[in-house]
Amino acid sequence: MEKIYQAGSQEGQINFINTEDLEMAAAQVIPTGGFGYISSGAGDLYTYQENVQSFNHQLIIPHVLKDVEIPDTTTYFDQETLTAPIIMAPIAAHGLAHTQAEKASAKGVADFHTIYTASSYASCTLEDIREAGGPDAPQWFQFYMSKDDAINLDILEMAKRNGAKAIVLTADATVGGNRETDLRNGFTFPLPMPIVQAYQSGVGQTMDAVYKSSKQKLSPKDIEFITTHSDLPVYVKGVQSEDDVFRSLDAGANGIWVSNHGGRQLDGGPASFDSLKYVAEAVDKRVPIVFDSGIRRGQHVFKAIASGADLVAIGRPAIYGLALGGSTGIHQVFDFFKKELEMVMQLAGTQTVEDIKNVTLRENRFH
Amino acid sequence: MEKIYQAGSQEGQINFINTEDLEMAAAQVIPTGGFGYISSGAGDLYTYQENVQSFNHQLIIPHVLKDVEIPDTTTYFDQETLTAPIIMAPIAAHGLAHTQAEKASAKGVADFHTIYTASSYASCTLEDIREAGGPDAPQWFQFYMSKDDAINLDILEMAKRNGAKAIVLTADATVGGNRETDLRNGFTFPLPMPIVQAYQSGVGQTMDAVYKSSKQKLSPKDIEFITTHSDLPVYVKGVQSEDDVFRSLDAGANGIWVSNHGGRQLDGGPASFDSLKYVAEAVDKRVPIVFDSGIRRGQHVFKAIASGADLVAIGRPAIYGLALGGSTGIHQVFDFFKKELEMVMQLAGTQTVEDIKNVTLRENRFH
Amino acid sequence: MEKIYQAGSQEGQINFINTEDLEMAAAQVIPTGGFGYISSGAGDLYTYQENVQSFNHQLIIPHVLKDVEIPDTTTYFDQETLTAPIIMAPIAAHGLAHTQAEKASAKGVADFHTIYTASSYASCTLEDIREAGGPDAPQWFQFYMSKDDAINLDILEMAKRNGAKAIVLTADATVGGNRETDLRNGFTFPLPMPIVQAYQSGVGQTMDAVYKSSKQKLSPKDIEFITTHSDLPVYVKGVQSEDDVFRSLDAGANGIWVSNHGGRQLDGGPASFDSLKYVAEAVDKRVPIVFDSGIRRGQHVFKAIASGADLVAIGRPAIYGLALGGSTGIHQVFDFFKKELEMVMQLAGTQTVEDIKNVTLRENRFH
Amino acid sequence: MEKIYQAGSQEGQINFINTEDLEMAAAQVIPTGGFGYISSGAGDLYTYQENVQSFNHQLIIPHVLKDVEIPDTTTYFDQETLTAPIIMAPIAAHGLAHTQAEKASAKGVADFHTIYTASSYASCTLEDIREAGGPDAPQWFQFYMSKDDAINLDILEMAKRNGAKAIVLTADATVGGNRETDLRNGFTFPLPMPIVQAYQSGVGQTMDAVYKSSKQKLSPKDIEFITTHSDLPVYVKGVQSEDDVFRSLDAGANGIWVSNHGGRQLDGGPASFDSLKYVAEAVDKRVPIVFDSGIRRGQHVFKAIASGADLVAIGRPAIYGLALGGSTGIHQVFDFFKKELEMVMQLAGTQTVEDIKNVTLRENRFH
Repeated sequence: MEKIYQAGSQEGQINFINTEDLEMAAAQVIPTGGFGYISSGAGDLYTYQENVQSFNHQLIIPHVLKDVEIPDTTTYFDQETLTAPIIMAPIAAHGLAHTQAEKASAKGVADFHTIYTASSYASCTLEDIREAGGPDAPQWFQFYMSKDDAINLDILEMAKRNGAKAIVLTADATVGGNRETDLRNGFTFPLPMPIVQAYQSGVGQTMDAVYKSSKQKLSPKDIEFITTHSDLPVYVKGVQSEDDVFRSLDAGANGIWVSNHGGRQLDGGPASFDSLKYVAEAVDKRVPIVFDSGIRRGQHVFKAIASGADLVAIGRPAIYGLALGGSTGIHQVFDFFKKELEMVMQLAGTQTVEDIKNVTLRENRFH
Repeated sequence: MEKIYQAGSQEGQINFINTEDLEMAAAQVIPTGGFGYISSGAGDLYTYQENVQSFNHQLIIPHVLKDVEIPDTTTYFDQETLTAPIIMAPIAAHGLAHTQAEKASAKGVADFHTIYTASSYASCTLEDIREAGGPDAPQWFQFYMSKDDAINLDILEMAKRNGAKAIVLTADATVGGNRETDLRNGFTFPLPMPIVQAYQSGVGQTMDAVYKSSKQKLSPKDIEFITTHSDLPVYVKGVQSEDDVFRSLDAGANGIWVSNHGGRQLDGGPASFDSLKYVAEAVDKRVPIVFDSGIRRGQHVFKAIASGADLVAIGRPAIYGLALGGSTGIHQVFDFFKKELEMVMQLAGTQTVEDIKNVTLRENRFH
Repeated sequence: MEKIYQAGSQEGQINFINTEDLEMAAAQVIPTGGFGYISSGAGDLYTYQENVQSFNHQLIIPHVLKDVEIPDTTTYFDQETLTAPIIMAPIAAHGLAHTQAEKASAKGVADFHTIYTASSYASCTLEDIREAGGPDAPQWFQFYMSKDDAINLDILEMAKRNGAKAIVLTADATVGGNRETDLRNGFTFPLPMPIVQAYQSGVGQTMDAVYKSSKQKLSPKDIEFITTHSDLPVYVKGVQSEDDVFRSLDAGANGIWVSNHGGRQLDGGPASFDSLKYVAEAVDKRVPIVFDSGIRRGQHVFKAIASGADLVAIGRPAIYGLALGGSTGIHQVFDFFKKELEMVMQLAGTQTVEDIKNVTLRENRFH
Repeated sequence: MEKIYQAGSQEGQINFINTEDLEMAAAQVIPTGGFGYISSGAGDLYTYQENVQSFNHQLIIPHVLKDVEIPDTTTYFDQETLTAPIIMAPIAAHGLAHTQAEKASAKGVADFHTIYTASSYASCTLEDIREAGGPDAPQWFQFYMSKDDAINLDILEMAKRNGAKAIVLTADATVGGNRETDLRNGFTFPLPMPIVQAYQSGVGQTMDAVYKSSKQKLSPKDIEFITTHSDLPVYVKGVQSEDDVFRSLDAGANGIWVSNHGGRQLDGGPASFDSLKYVAEAVDKRVPIVFDSGIRRGQHVFKAIASGADLVAIGRPAIYGLALGGSTGIHQVFDFFKKELEMVMQLAGTQTVEDIKNVTLRENRFH
């Protein structure tokens, strides 16, 4: 690792045509260790790569006579009106990408008018994140539980105090995946993690050590614990199977978040998008579904929603935008997705986000 | 973009063995921006590439004892006798490829004796196109509707006056796809579009801007509008789904044109050839089917016809021939397809185009 | 083409480990035009490549407790006892590969003790081929029919006079495929074709011209013609469909030869091995099946026989052996296949060729 | 081959992140001929490569609310308590990799506390192997039978005397596969094979010659012979089909070992992992199943056990560890697999090895 960690610090418009451009440019700005941590995946990268490739397993059939013009991505979710069904995924340590860290990302996402999910392992305090987004910004809090329930109560209290509208329980990262890029780079976190400082300082730790300092023995009781003590809706993140759906809903979860952690945890598992249909069938519209892992295009957002997702979260591309242009950069990335989604909606003959939900994709028999 | 746009200007025989040769040679003759516009596709190029690859999803079984000799590609369509079931697809702005633009292409296609589809966004007037083809050349007019119906009536009148035998309503390009090559090249049209000058001059515009200046809100009523006011048969172009077939036929369409716009509009959708069978089942022989997107070989023509198409349209290869050899060059390209088709017909045991329609392809189980 | 065509002329042992070695070494010995003609395929080479790849569509399950030792490839076919179920495919113009042409190949194959199929387009006379093989060598004659039946009668008479035990009617080459390597090389035959000199001299001709000088309008009547006038068994070569099987057998064919002409004729059709199972089902053991196109390994021979073939013919690898080592070289190539087949037989738990016929391959669900 | 064969001789910790690192580093330490022999496979390497790729045919679904923490790989097998369900496969001639040969590998494996399978073709005596492992190390003996039963009785007696707990009858190597790397390297064994010296000295022999000096005509009677004369449990190794299972169990086999010999014998057969499910269904839990061929990751171990294996054997990676670090190195390799397996168990929601056996993998429909 670099002695002094020097993240991006630009604020302003960035030039890019697609999210691959972002990744390539960000690799020049983010230090090697941090970029490796953000960009890479687990093991042989099979699941990591399938996360993106799998969108070609289901095809959008163009519809050309559907009386559509200037499609509208506005999304009504809970009590919120969002610019698009695209939200910010919880990503640890935005300070790795940009010196302004979550202060810039929370602002950029608030400017776009969508939900910001703050990570437990943020480089800023929840107070800073709340302030950066402004008082009306819809913010959720992603929770890595401590082994110590007293600490958990404190953190939940902090989240409520800072206006979190929901708790996202990340349940798929109870140990670190075999992220070999981090091992090759000898990567340890160069920055503190103020939100969880009661159980984890972060500095100088490997990801695996950080995860292991949090709670492993997750079970439906943890959902009940959070619901009881926070009185906030709970989204269980990392769900890819029917039985985890049932387990979550039986314990009172208010939403299911389909994710394989961006292909960073268990290599040799399914692409997140391939799992979505199993989960959607099990959920059967009883609660909202959030989807992430592999979204790089507007067509991916479209396909996820047509496959049962209510909201789609983006991670790496947003962080690259943050690294390259601060709050303006991350805002631009959300605009990119919105613009591509509008184009796809027009070509698919869908005027509204609700129309997308009624679309049937064609399974690719020849993949 | 180049300051002064300098397209090809040769007239005469060109040397090529297949259509890849054409593409490589044309890249040397057509300026970068124009070549990028003509050759490239949308997004990650998945659909663009599948357009060609998908022909291997269905296999031609050779038949060897069918008493066939010197197969005949002559095609009787409507009142026309065509040299082969291969026609010219509507392509915008032939001036990008050759200084003689549609004057040369219309002549070359007429010399081959098949249907020429003139694009609304042609670089020449319809009068010039008509004159270049000669009075008996079968010409169709591809229509990008204006938002203004008065203009639409004028354009339809112009098409009739210039002998159009059918109107092709392109319905899949109501916005521009994410054609990233154009964005990287900063491509805007260097040439005027005289046919639609009442609503779009063309010069200095991006493709997206051009599309957006035309009508987005296409619906079955537009088919009725054209039928009513032109009294010409209407082909709906860009159909890939059963319900667009039903919508079109219910509104009085006289033909269905299967196309995904050469993979230039919606990436993440099916190959055009893969959609053909769905469309053909829905059409159920009630009206003719035209097919395009991905035709590079005589075997592709054969497979499309065996899968339900009555006519097959070629685009890029023809434009490359135009760029390299003017009217002679494009004529040669049609001859290339005819010659390969004859070879395939002989080896597949089919004497006539009608015989091809009775062929059953073998689905490739091991693709 | 080279002014003076200088084929290989070595006689003796060659060094090789597999048939790819042979191809690479032969490319150094055979002049460019001749090597291109021999080695290449049609169009985009899809079918050509699938011919070899398709063997992985069916898998051999090892069997380990079957009491097998030193498997025996001896093959009893008709009245012949062959060293292995591997015979020589008809290949035009062995003179392209070796100055001794068919005189060397017929000797090498006879030394191995298997069937030699002499091509109509051989570089030697049938008298020479007979003499080279010796009086007891089992030789078949592959027939490209003339348009003139008087010539056909003469050629059949010549074949009988020279001891042909069967007539192989090649029915899949009534025109030349789009062999683009030949076009690029400007290849024409540099050598005469003495057997068919009554209708085709060969010299200076393209393959397409040669094929077109022979009869195109093949039908079941041609089978009857040959049977009636030669009183020899007729094998129909180039069969890949059920209905060609029925047509052939109804007309009195005595054998079916599955082939796609080494992927040199119709690109976009199935691999020959993929067609074999359809053909075998249609034949239903009524007549013998010969298989070719794509055999490069002993395991391929095994799989073809387990899929219904009685005999397997090899072409290009044998010609490469001829080019590199004359009669000794081609003999070595047959030995290579025999040796690999023995190894596979041992590992698959099969003692005899009849045992192979009772093997069920496992279809590759994950290809 | 090198005149003086100079294997690795280091003893101590090695640096590696995954098993590919091991292979690359070992290639620098093991002489060319020996490395080629160890690392390569048969024929076109199709089966060899599929051995690893095939693990993606079945996918592990993460489970996130299963109350799991610090999973336990301890495996109770027969009367043994093993550190993990990972054992040492029989590999010939460890002396090719390390000067301490089986003395180092038996020690390293014993230090890890799992089963060591000694090869008949070991470079050390069974006495040395026993001594290196220590008196309590669970050791099995892999048997290549002689053609001479008197010798077989002697060898069985030797195995019993040296504490073998089971006899593994390798039945899939009655001839050598077409290992072309060995042929290209001109590889012959540079070292003696003391265990089978009564019928095979080893030195200067090719693998094929070694295999052929052992017994080919294996049948169920050989299982009975070993059972009768050794009174030890017999595992039949190399089973990939249902009927070999039935044949083995009917003859009294006590376990089935699924293997395709690391893709070194029959190319064109299935991946070992793809065969496992057929075998497991046939075994139907009547006897234990050992699995090998292609294990490179903890996730592979998990998938094999979830597919019916009781134990998983590793070969090449262990030998590479031996080459690079002697007994310490091979021990580290076993630790690597254990650590990755623990991570996978946590993420898959499985606390114990028994839990893995109750997991249902999701078949990859889109491979």
